[in-house]
Amino acid sequence: MIELSRRNMLAGAAVVTAAGPLGISAPVLAAAPPAGKQNAGFYRTKLGTLELTVVTDGVRVFPLPDTFVRNAKKDEVNAALRAAFMKPDEMVIPFNPTVVNTGSKLVLIDTGSGPGALAQTKGAVGQCHGNLAAAGIQASAIDTVIISHFHGDHINGLLTADGKPAFTNAEVMVPAAEWAFWMDDANMGKAPEAAQAAFKNARRVFGALGNKVTQYQGDKELVPGITSVSTPGHSPGHTSFVIASGDQSLFWQADVTNAPALFVRNPGWHVMFDMDGPAAEATRRKVYDRLAADRQMMAGFHFPFPAIAHIEKDGNGYRQVPVAWNPSI
Amino acid sequence: MIELSRRNMLAGAAVVTAAGPLGISAPVLAAAPPAGKQNAGFYRTKLGTLELTVVTDGVRVFPLPDTFVRNAKKDEVNAALRAAFMKPDEMVIPFNPTVVNTGSKLVLIDTGSGPGALAQTKGAVGQCHGNLAAAGIQASAIDTVIISHFHGDHINGLLTADGKPAFTNAEVMVPAAEWAFWMDDANMGKAPEAAQAAFKNARRVFGALGNKVTQYQGDKELVPGITSVSTPGHSPGHTSFVIASGDQSLFWQADVTNAPALFVRNPGWHVMFDMDGPAAEATRRKVYDRLAADRQMMAGFHFPFPAIAHIEKDGNGYRQVPVAWNPSI
Repeated sequence: MIELSRRNMLAGAAVVTAAGPLGISAPVLAAAPPAGKQNAGFYRTKLGTLELTVVTDGVRVFPLPDTFVRNAKKDEVNAALRAAFMKPDEMVIPFNPTVVNTGSKLVLIDTGSGPGALAQTKGAVGQCHGNLAAAGIQASAIDTVIISHFHGDHINGLLTADGKPAFTNAEVMVPAAEWAFWMDDANMGKAPEAAQAAFKNARRVFGALGNKVTQYQGDKELVPGITSVSTPGHSPGHTSFVIASGDQSLFWQADVTNAPALFVRNPGWHVMFDMDGPAAEATRRKVYDRLAADRQMMAGFHFPFPAIAHIEKDGNGYRQVPVAWNPSI
Repeated sequence: MIELSRRNMLAGAAVVTAAGPLGISAPVLAAAPPAGKQNAGFYRTKLGTLELTVVTDGVRVFPLPDTFVRNAKKDEVNAALRAAFMKPDEMVIPFNPTVVNTGSKLVLIDTGSGPGALAQTKGAVGQCHGNLAAAGIQASAIDTVIISHFHGDHINGLLTADGKPAFTNAEVMVPAAEWAFWMDDANMGKAPEAAQAAFKNARRVFGALGNKVTQYQGDKELVPGITSVSTPGHSPGHTSFVIASGDQSLFWQADVTNAPALFVRNPGWHVMFDMDGPAAEATRRKVYDRLAADRQMMAGFHFPFPAIAHIEKDGNGYRQVPVAWNPSI
């Protein structure tokens, strides 16, 4: 007879002793030492004739700020974390730059926090460059870097740890609306003290490139197979991308939502990083209504690696259904 | 103004040409050649003081048999596949053996279809041994192999491609009830023709080990931290495991469900591989009610890699919530 008790299923190791009836354990071999090392952080998939490589920059874990969601109470946020089987009072945010080999261009979309962040975060983020190497992708082989917006976790990886251009042969494409906003001295001057750092950081990063960038407008094919879609709100020029080949397409949403456990489930919630909360919410609802209706594959920069999913409606919000890992390609 | 049209989001590459106003495309560099190679198929995580390494054996893709679910119509099954954003008329079944380093033993739970299956399936399955090597785990370092049940995708990896024992230094632990069932000549004699192969296969595999196995009963600590739990129905002696350390535990369900998109969502459905459908369903409902109530972490041999999830109730069934990939350990 099967008997599945709480004792059996939960407390197995605690209630049954390894010792025999006389209380004498059998001698055991010393096991191999623990490896202590995670697999490399890349995942490869085909999209029509394109080859995508999602390359994680790592995960940040930090105490949940009281105002992490501007328009929700902390206990509501904790309830959402619990519903997602995550720890309360803690945020876990992944970062997922993506490489697209179009057949004619090797393109990196967003760059992570840069190898300079490795020391500062004890290896938590700044992993993208190392994972590119693990995936067999040389930084010098990248033809184009496309930037979605100018927050540090997207642009800082344009530089090496010592502040030099990391992708020496790449054209760097940036949203014209981002460039106009962040490089405007008047905008920087009237920004609150706490927001000054982001302006200075954008100037530091692009200054190291000699400000050599190609500005793009929304809704343009930037390279064959990758088209920009304006999705403002998170930042003034925040941009998503359609990656398409043949009859297959993927909507690369950048930061239309932050952590899905909170903001896909609760599209009305405004993360503290959304520069214009109501505009970001309006964008989010439009994008997600369409993703759900069209059943289009998508990728979220802040989704758990490898960050590719479909979106379904669920209650008053949505739910991400991760695409199954394919061990072959 | 943001304008998110269907045309923008879906058909990007089709509607915007890379050619300039004169119809002349800019010259493009030849991109790096496609890598064409997936990341290694292992994932590492800590559970208390234990180190787990999920090692995928690959994924089988095959046309949906009419009787894949014995007690559901094919169009109901296709509706469930569609709801999970999977292709209709096709089954995708992953396989996920798991290594546990307990600190005193290096333990492999189930073994996949074996490297002999690589040629036959064009590399689709039989990957476990290669992925063990990629994870830095030598077959000769495995102290113990624990088998959940005697179906080929769980036991065939006990052997190398040429039919020799693969884990030369390992004690092989098998459920006593499985041994009694599959090794009984009367049971084989009265099995229908189509079921004879499974009996012969079990005898082939364990015969190559000289039938040197340690038989275990349910609800016993097999090695420190790993306790067997009888979960019959899928096969007569089908066994799951509680892996536990300190206050952390994981329920390693083996085949309590097959593909979650069908059988976690519809626990009343009987997969064609369930040898006793009603008994398997009874086990499944008990296990899943408890997993949901206790919010216990679990792993499914046939879940998408890396196969670790939590279970929540949803409608008349359940839903798996995958644990987020941690790029560090």
